[in-house]
Amino acid sequence: MTKTREKRRSALRIRRKPGYRRIATEEAWAPTEMLELYMKLMAKRSFDEPGFRSLMGFYLQSPSERARQVAERLQWLDERRIRDMDDSGIDMQVLALTAPGVQIFDRATAVSIAKSSNDQLAEAVRTWPDRFTGLAAVAPQDPPAAAKELERAVLKLGLKGAVINSHTHGEYLDDDKFWDILEAAEALNVPIYLHPRDLPRTMLQPFVERGLDGAIYGFGCETGLHMLRIIVSGALDRFPKLRFIIGHGGEALPYWMYRVDYMHAAAVRSKRFASAKPLKKRPGDYLKENIYITTSGMAWAPAIMFAQSVLGVDRVLYAMDYPYQFTPAEVAAMDAMPISARAKKMFFQSNAERVFNL
Amino acid sequence: MTKTREKRRSALRIRRKPGYRRIATEEAWAPTEMLELYMKLMAKRSFDEPGFRSLMGFYLQSPSERARQVAERLQWLDERRIRDMDDSGIDMQVLALTAPGVQIFDRATAVSIAKSSNDQLAEAVRTWPDRFTGLAAVAPQDPPAAAKELERAVLKLGLKGAVINSHTHGEYLDDDKFWDILEAAEALNVPIYLHPRDLPRTMLQPFVERGLDGAIYGFGCETGLHMLRIIVSGALDRFPKLRFIIGHGGEALPYWMYRVDYMHAAAVRSKRFASAKPLKKRPGDYLKENIYITTSGMAWAPAIMFAQSVLGVDRVLYAMDYPYQFTPAEVAAMDAMPISARAKKMFFQSNAERVFNL
Repeated sequence: MTKTREKRRSALRIRRKPGYRRIATEEAWAPTEMLELYMKLMAKRSFDEPGFRSLMGFYLQSPSERARQVAERLQWLDERRIRDMDDSGIDMQVLALTAPGVQIFDRATAVSIAKSSNDQLAEAVRTWPDRFTGLAAVAPQDPPAAAKELERAVLKLGLKGAVINSHTHGEYLDDDKFWDILEAAEALNVPIYLHPRDLPRTMLQPFVERGLDGAIYGFGCETGLHMLRIIVSGALDRFPKLRFIIGHGGEALPYWMYRVDYMHAAAVRSKRFASAKPLKKRPGDYLKENIYITTSGMAWAPAIMFAQSVLGVDRVLYAMDYPYQFTPAEVAAMDAMPISARAKKMFFQSNAERVFNL
Repeated sequence: MTKTREKRRSALRIRRKPGYRRIATEEAWAPTEMLELYMKLMAKRSFDEPGFRSLMGFYLQSPSERARQVAERLQWLDERRIRDMDDSGIDMQVLALTAPGVQIFDRATAVSIAKSSNDQLAEAVRTWPDRFTGLAAVAPQDPPAAAKELERAVLKLGLKGAVINSHTHGEYLDDDKFWDILEAAEALNVPIYLHPRDLPRTMLQPFVERGLDGAIYGFGCETGLHMLRIIVSGALDRFPKLRFIIGHGGEALPYWMYRVDYMHAAAVRSKRFASAKPLKKRPGDYLKENIYITTSGMAWAPAIMFAQSVLGVDRVLYAMDYPYQFTPAEVAAMDAMPISARAKKMFFQSNAERVFNL
């Protein structure tokens, strides 16, 4: 680390030897070819994905500093990324293909880009094994192929789980046509990271009308919905050892836990929905037993400590959300959280080591 | 109170003289005529409101115990309701017309039912002034009439604010065509209670497919969205003394506060949306200064204490959500919250007295 960088880090009060490794668990990257395919899609007038156009159109086409920085850094899978990690005190990144990943493509393209991006990610992990690890991209458009690719990525490439960027063409993983993927993840003993993406057209309008469709709010509603759909579908009774990870403080589900449990029990009792079947446990129990949460975009001690108190300190993992929220000062704030040294090591390091089998 | 009832209350550990009055601030009622109009609407095949059909169709037509109990108790505005209040230790209810209130009707019907229901509610308040107070129904379909009715309800009838059941035919209060209502509430120094209702068709589908459109989850997303739309529109810069109240633990907005502030600042800087204009304060500041939250449906000490810690103990008010969540045991749980006696009196009593000018 250069003197200047060292100085900057200490000005931010990011401690050099804090007594734990800082593992950031929701860090995004994108192969240049994929971003070029995104641009090609958007150039087609017939391409009718208003949420994607609004969101990725911004990141890939806006002249703003924020959009340019994000688009450029997403493509760094080399020393430039490691320099940013050094500047912000991050020892290791758990990398995942940025949203919506391959889920915007047709089936064949999705299957092909998932493979090639996993190969590239694995190459970077082999080059910097102490700094990078990663999750496999899979194409839910073709569930058997996705299961097979996850197996290849874990067993052959050494990746640590799968990332799924919420809905795929408006469909959700609670539909059992996707359960090949869930079955494979459980059999391989790897987690599925359920990450937000642009909202489906079936819920976009009231959010996008006021610019609230993205990370500011819509992401959380939609990904929280996706996780709840999976829970109430009974998928976690069918795959009881399956682990999911959700970011952004658990997409507010820890805060909603009491109400979800109360209203789910009421709905099951009153048989309001044919689909509201009894589950083996309360929805909140799956949240506590099958789901881990990360703090991407939520570098805020009160919310993190609340989540730790209701889920357990073993369930909450640090994440930065690089490069979308590359804010080194937040690392210093997390270092300063008023929790025990043991809890802090779990938060930054040992929970991630356990969940991702590092 | 009869001996049996007294026994039941003490079995639930609801203290008789806790040192505060328990004022429940989000309690629902419905005139029989309005429910009959709902039934008439649903009988029309041409009536195309899928969210309303799914939700009120359940409460008014399901043979389940839950639906029958709710539909019956909604119509009690007399000794029967007071008996339930006695059984659960509630000294006073702040009553509001149940969702979606008049907002499902055509303009003329809405204006007329708002008036007649306010008259009925005021009559009940006059009869039991120590036990009931209430909020005015207004018809956003006709903003000038709504403003006028709010003025009549406050100045002539003695009601304490307005209830607005989220969207009106898919439109939100951030649209300045509704601002007559906001202006009137500010001028009268009364709060607007922004309450959930069935989701608009523009976001219903992915929620209702798995029975997650109602109180279990969809309500929170949509009402939180509504509140954020109002905040980012600048309405609270235009009406800086206006106070809103949102229930259900603030619809998770206290938990989202850090992320909303971060991403709003990023969106304003990068000019992603023409509508994302700079505000005088951060979104979270409006949450702390213009908005009060209640605990309807969220009788859970960890979430309540988290909200108190980030908003202030003066911003969080008790609510039961009778008759939708008539669960006397929850009152005992709230009595037992590990907070100071002073904070508990604010929670149950003095915050409500201040916010509603009781």
